[in-house]
Amino acid sequence: MKLTFSPASPFARKVRIAAIELGLIDRIEFMPVTVAPGTPNEEYSKIHPLKKLPVLILDNGEIVADSYVIVEYLDELAGGGRLIPASGPLRWKIKSDHSLLQGMLDSMLLCRYETMVRPKELRWKAWSDDHWNRAWKGMARFEGEVDAMAARPLDIAQIALTCVLGYADFRFPDCGWRKACPGLDAFYRKMLERPSVKISAPPA
Amino acid sequence: MKLTFSPASPFARKVRIAAIELGLIDRIEFMPVTVAPGTPNEEYSKIHPLKKLPVLILDNGEIVADSYVIVEYLDELAGGGRLIPASGPLRWKIKSDHSLLQGMLDSMLLCRYETMVRPKELRWKAWSDDHWNRAWKGMARFEGEVDAMAARPLDIAQIALTCVLGYADFRFPDCGWRKACPGLDAFYRKMLERPSVKISAPPA
Repeated sequence: MKLTFSPASPFARKVRIAAIELGLIDRIEFMPVTVAPGTPNEEYSKIHPLKKLPVLILDNGEIVADSYVIVEYLDELAGGGRLIPASGPLRWKIKSDHSLLQGMLDSMLLCRYETMVRPKELRWKAWSDDHWNRAWKGMARFEGEVDAMAARPLDIAQIALTCVLGYADFRFPDCGWRKACPGLDAFYRKMLERPSVKISAPPA
Repeated sequence: MKLTFSPASPFARKVRIAAIELGLIDRIEFMPVTVAPGTPNEEYSKIHPLKKLPVLILDNGEIVADSYVIVEYLDELAGGGRLIPASGPLRWKIKSDHSLLQGMLDSMLLCRYETMVRPKELRWKAWSDDHWNRAWKGMARFEGEVDAMAARPLDIAQIALTCVLGYADFRFPDCGWRKACPGLDAFYRKMLERPSVKISAPPA
């Protein structure tokens, strides 16, 4: 299998951590791809019309798209129910938490594009404030739940939270999340003890 | 159960169609919510920190977040394997197609915000062109696959494609997708014969 990948992508990191934790990383070949908003990549558009990372390309040429669906696929390949409970209320809690965390990443990426990529004179503060506020409210939500989360065996929501916090460090190093959310800070430090999390940290 | 809802949201439409098709609509109470980028909604942020629609609020107060996860939840409630195959290659094809369609909706919404909501003097053409191009490339991808899709029993990817096309009609009525993609046009017309699709069409 091949995985389209960028070391800066928090979505690709999620898949990488999951693949290592599931013992499947040796079956995946990384395929570096560069995508940026406002910049075409016709070659990659043939694989993913929206130029999104990551995509898992199976040996038969079929694609599995979206970091979450890829983790589901890998989880099933590894026997099922490993990172996503197969049934019960926790299944829906973890899936819903994952969706919130995915939305936080989307909002953080939009903030980055607005405040760092878009031409200066075209920036709209109400937009970036709104998205930052969403991500921040998400942080507060998980700060209140992180102890319960951390008490569970590793799951896709914990991995996604790790990717959110790593992305905050990477792109918004001065935002102060560690001070505002000491529970999340302790959680991230603990997660960094895992080789899968350490090796996949975004470039400095 | 309660569903936070707006008749203009293609994501809420997806859940509504699925709930009708699964025979569960009578168990769901609609809860109208208004959200807009750049505008706070502190009340709703308590339910969903990112102010996203729709959310399913269960009778025990737990939430199920994200239109896709809600459809999965409802599908399971209806016995499972109804709109998302429970196993096999088609499961991953349909999930991946759904992800592409979800990304198309995200890009179309970003285009709308950029070209209709953002103050005129702050618009960045490279950004909206890029996102429109993504949605358009997605259209071309599904134009090439729609006959195979339409030959299957109803599934979540067909419902999502319906919501994409309805949203194109609703927000970009002059974009010319029907002429460019006659297969999708025929598909949407056929889908509109379903009461679930007809009743959920966005407001004129």
